[in-house]
Amino acid sequence: MSEGAEGAEGAPARDPVAPRRRGRPARRAAGEGPGARERILASARGEFAERGYDKASVRAIARGAGVDAALVHHYFGTKEQVFAAAVEAALTPALGVPELVGGAAPGEVGETVVRAFLALWEDPAARDPVLAILRSAVSNERAAEVFRTLVTRHLVSRVAARLGAEDAEFRVNLAVAQLVGAAVLRYVVKLEPLASEPVESVVARLAPVVQLHLTGPVPPGPPGAP
Amino acid sequence: MSEGAEGAEGAPARDPVAPRRRGRPARRAAGEGPGARERILASARGEFAERGYDKASVRAIARGAGVDAALVHHYFGTKEQVFAAAVEAALTPALGVPELVGGAAPGEVGETVVRAFLALWEDPAARDPVLAILRSAVSNERAAEVFRTLVTRHLVSRVAARLGAEDAEFRVNLAVAQLVGAAVLRYVVKLEPLASEPVESVVARLAPVVQLHLTGPVPPGPPGAP
Repeated sequence: MSEGAEGAEGAPARDPVAPRRRGRPARRAAGEGPGARERILASARGEFAERGYDKASVRAIARGAGVDAALVHHYFGTKEQVFAAAVEAALTPALGVPELVGGAAPGEVGETVVRAFLALWEDPAARDPVLAILRSAVSNERAAEVFRTLVTRHLVSRVAARLGAEDAEFRVNLAVAQLVGAAVLRYVVKLEPLASEPVESVVARLAPVVQLHLTGPVPPGPPGAP
Repeated sequence: MSEGAEGAEGAPARDPVAPRRRGRPARRAAGEGPGARERILASARGEFAERGYDKASVRAIARGAGVDAALVHHYFGTKEQVFAAAVEAALTPALGVPELVGGAAPGEVGETVVRAFLALWEDPAARDPVLAILRSAVSNERAAEVFRTLVTRHLVSRVAARLGAEDAEFRVNLAVAQLVGAAVLRYVVKLEPLASEPVESVVARLAPVVQLHLTGPVPPGPPGAP
């Protein structure tokens, strides 16, 4: 168990992102200094991508960043909280999307979102951190929980607030499903011809669908549905 | 390297699914007998899901199935070919989808496909094998190649043939993206409210989108596109 005990499966649910500083190291810890935080996050991404959430350890993350494990704990807390910080860093390039949605003409919401999303995935510097955390989230229930909490807080809820519809969060989920599915098949599985189509061609196909999910009429529900 | 050397990264591309029998064991191998093939596939799924494609070994798969590694090689060949067999087994429940598409009324293709897809994912016995291989495919390039080869051959090409449109494979890719994305978010990441919505409600939202991808008008392309 060692580090990460607080993040073990079965622990009571709590906010995985709450900032948490425990025991500032009494002496200046090895490796502390400018850029240490960023080095730790980069090392964490590599460790989570390479070994998976289960087997990743704070000690190995510290080693990869050239710092003491105590400094990792000081900056971030448990393994789960390091993971949460890596997720937040990976989501940073997408944080402008809710404003884009709020500012787009009503008929152009779909295209605006699709363009912004694909621009991120076309850029390896933005894509690789997302892929690293997505791999952990698909393989580990605790990592999935952290991922969904942060995606909901930073993206789903904020986009939904700008749509204003009663079922706005469901609509955003469905649009995210289309976008994430397209990204996984195009950039990871490399399914053809999707992987080789020009970006503009993919935008042209996805924009009407995302528009439909976000702003289209509610389809007739099943009999007896509320 | 040991077993799996033929399947190493950088080896020349070849058909990962071609049946390949090498060296029938001179004596009856330990564990051979009725059900050995199925036990090996079940063990392989567990091993690939648990340790990932990279770290999975034929020896551990054999141990899990209670058979000699020689028998695994005899039935399947390399690690890559064991993985291919696991992918094929996981795709088996979906092999009827092309016929469903061929038999559906033109306006009901989307709903037919979505219902069949979600019915599989709602059934853990069908879902777990797909998840096991999807985790490997998202984490390893060689596993991704095997996965896309088999998904293309068994599903994309056969559904596209029934659609008959010039861009049919691209259309099927986009529909698969919507479906896979929805499945990952609903059943793995458990994004809310998508994860808790009744199946019928999800069908009602996805059917028009899959219908649009498969049979809708071609959106206007970018300037200068063919």
